Amino acid sequence: MTCKIISIKELRPLLNDLKLIREKSPLVHNITNYVVMNNTANGLLALGASPVMAHAPEEVEEMVAIASALVINMGTLSKHWVEAMLKAGKKAKERGIPVIFDPVGAGATSYRSQTATIIINECKPDIIRGNGSEIMSLAKSNIATKGVDSTANSESALEMGKDLAQKTGAVISISGQEDFITDGKNVNTVKFGSPMMPKVTGLGCTASAITGAFAAVNKNLLEAATNAMTIMGFAGEIAAKKSDGPGSLQINFLDTIFNFHKLI
Amino acid sequence: MTCKIISIKELRPLLNDLKLIREKSPLVHNITNYVVMNNTANGLLALGASPVMAHAPEEVEEMVAIASALVINMGTLSKHWVEAMLKAGKKAKERGIPVIFDPVGAGATSYRSQTATIIINECKPDIIRGNGSEIMSLAKSNIATKGVDSTANSESALEMGKDLAQKTGAVISISGQEDFITDGKNVNTVKFGSPMMPKVTGLGCTASAITGAFAAVNKNLLEAATNAMTIMGFAGEIAAKKSDGPGSLQINFLDTIFNFHKLI
Amino acid sequence: MTCKIISIKELRPLLNDLKLIREKSPLVHNITNYVVMNNTANGLLALGASPVMAHAPEEVEEMVAIASALVINMGTLSKHWVEAMLKAGKKAKERGIPVIFDPVGAGATSYRSQTATIIINECKPDIIRGNGSEIMSLAKSNIATKGVDSTANSESALEMGKDLAQKTGAVISISGQEDFITDGKNVNTVKFGSPMMPKVTGLGCTASAITGAFAAVNKNLLEAATNAMTIMGFAGEIAAKKSDGPGSLQINFLDTIFNFHKLI
Repeated sequence: MTCKIISIKELRPLLNDLKLIREKSPLVHNITNYVVMNNTANGLLALGASPVMAHAPEEVEEMVAIASALVINMGTLSKHWVEAMLKAGKKAKERGIPVIFDPVGAGATSYRSQTATIIINECKPDIIRGNGSEIMSLAKSNIATKGVDSTANSESALEMGKDLAQKTGAVISISGQEDFITDGKNVNTVKFGSPMMPKVTGLGCTASAITGAFAAVNKNLLEAATNAMTIMGFAGEIAAKKSDGPGSLQINFLDTIFNFHKLI
Repeated sequence: MTCKIISIKELRPLLNDLKLIREKSPLVHNITNYVVMNNTANGLLALGASPVMAHAPEEVEEMVAIASALVINMGTLSKHWVEAMLKAGKKAKERGIPVIFDPVGAGATSYRSQTATIIINECKPDIIRGNGSEIMSLAKSNIATKGVDSTANSESALEMGKDLAQKTGAVISISGQEDFITDGKNVNTVKFGSPMMPKVTGLGCTASAITGAFAAVNKNLLEAATNAMTIMGFAGEIAAKKSDGPGSLQINFLDTIFNFHKLI
Repeated sequence: MTCKIISIKELRPLLNDLKLIREKSPLVHNITNYVVMNNTANGLLALGASPVMAHAPEEVEEMVAIASALVINMGTLSKHWVEAMLKAGKKAKERGIPVIFDPVGAGATSYRSQTATIIINECKPDIIRGNGSEIMSLAKSNIATKGVDSTANSESALEMGKDLAQKTGAVISISGQEDFITDGKNVNTVKFGSPMMPKVTGLGCTASAITGAFAAVNKNLLEAATNAMTIMGFAGEIAAKKSDGPGSLQINFLDTIFNFHKLI
């Protein structure tokens, strides 16, 4: 097992991926929650990717057919949306495009936990990105989840994340004060970020959406997921320094992602 | 009847509640409309509370079971959402957590008026927060409601609000140029705010969500509802002074709420 | 055919309409997508109009009955929403209020293309506003649409737009680097805007919503649609000059619309 601390010098792979995203503008198909649709679309646009939101069972397979990545986020679940998620997820696997799954609030209700299990079993996501509580819940831990915000330290979730990676074959990306990204064997650590970031709703969901864009251009999914968390944390940290609070952070974050190439 | 004008010196009870919200970070379960989900989640986070949005009949009862307050907002109604609202509202009453109801657009269509009546009868909300038109409509007035924005002066709605409070047992919180909060006997008046505030969509809905956070930590619901309208109006007024228009107001408002403890 | 280049001097008709919008505050009923509801409501409020979002089949006809314009946007389609769009559209035609249709992503999936055709046939929109790809797709072109962002130059879509205008009787408003607005015979060109604008999600949808407000006060629909695209492009260009990226553009755009009367 390697434990790697990402430093500014090590941003090279991220910048390579970012260049590819801006050249190719991959279409990232999101089936996500109502709360964050606007932010995540803006996050993807600022990055250089092309977002699309579509959830009708009548069209998700066709939309997946022209997409370069699929992001499934269960933040505001309901029956018809779950049907669309499963349909889209299976089609994406069939096409071989990366599937990213964000198990928002897994563990908070049995409906969420069960839905997460069904999505993992039927769609076999390539990357699962969540906070510590969610990842521990998926790993069948008994930790209590409080709503959709994490109560677990991401470090304490790492061991369970590694188990989950080995069990599911997915790269597991755990956000927290430090982010851990693991394929069950290797672990990458991202130490950027700001305590103001959890005060903006949906930055975790944006991380998942952006992970989709990186996975669309980089077949090394451990690297792709790490690059996504790195740009999130790095841009968030820079943006937070310019911000008076979470309102301005949200805006500065998008501007920083948009101008990221100028930072280095 | 007491008529109290809140002044800056009188912010003490608000600051006490704010301290409690930041210590306990109460989970506020919102079943709200699509337009404002993002803003209201951000408003609650900036305040120090923990928002969750969940509307599936399969999970609302379980989510209510871990929440400290339930906020029902009927801004973008549909059949399945109303079912979830009723299910969640009954569970919340059973558990004894405060239920806040925002009757968005009551009076604009018969579907909205009927739904509001059903929610009031079946969920028995502890606090009803709306603009003058909505409150007058609920009080069976014949005033015309134009869409979701108020055409009535909140002052002219006060008498009807008092009737509604007596009839329903709920605290009635009426927003307008001046806000009136009444339990049918006592009336608190909040004179803060800015004419730019109605130019930002969903600040009324944010007021309702924030009322949920205050009610989660303060059993005196007249006081809780007053504190919520006070921080809304006070932060809005300060934020408006720094803002060139409603775009920047939205951002400055969140930053001001986040830094509210530094203002005094 | 006249080809008119709008210049700053020619803003007079726009300012006349803007004055009327601010006097009358027309209620614009939007049945739109989840991603942009918040932005478009804020865009309409900054302009001076009064937005309402309502999609329940139980109430759309009653809401249309008090509205001054109806905007149908198919960005996030599903079965029940399409039903509501058709119901509302027919009622709006019956009442003689303008119907604006934004065929988001037409051509991307057959579900979208079919739905667009049904809406055009059954609701007979007065103005159709989309990007080049969408308009070309509606005009039965075989151009490939990529997701919801345009791959076609709006200029190349103009000829097809003119055909579509003649076929449907609608004014066709095509956004792009240059915007073209045509009734099939006359063509207005709007040359304002900024390359940063497509990096903000939903500005096209905001253009459609704002077109509704102009159409509510100006019976000359070619002029109304042109005025809407002019204020969008002009405010966007000014706002972009003040903005570090798409995050701040979104905010500055709303502030600029709000203060538009001060610019001239």
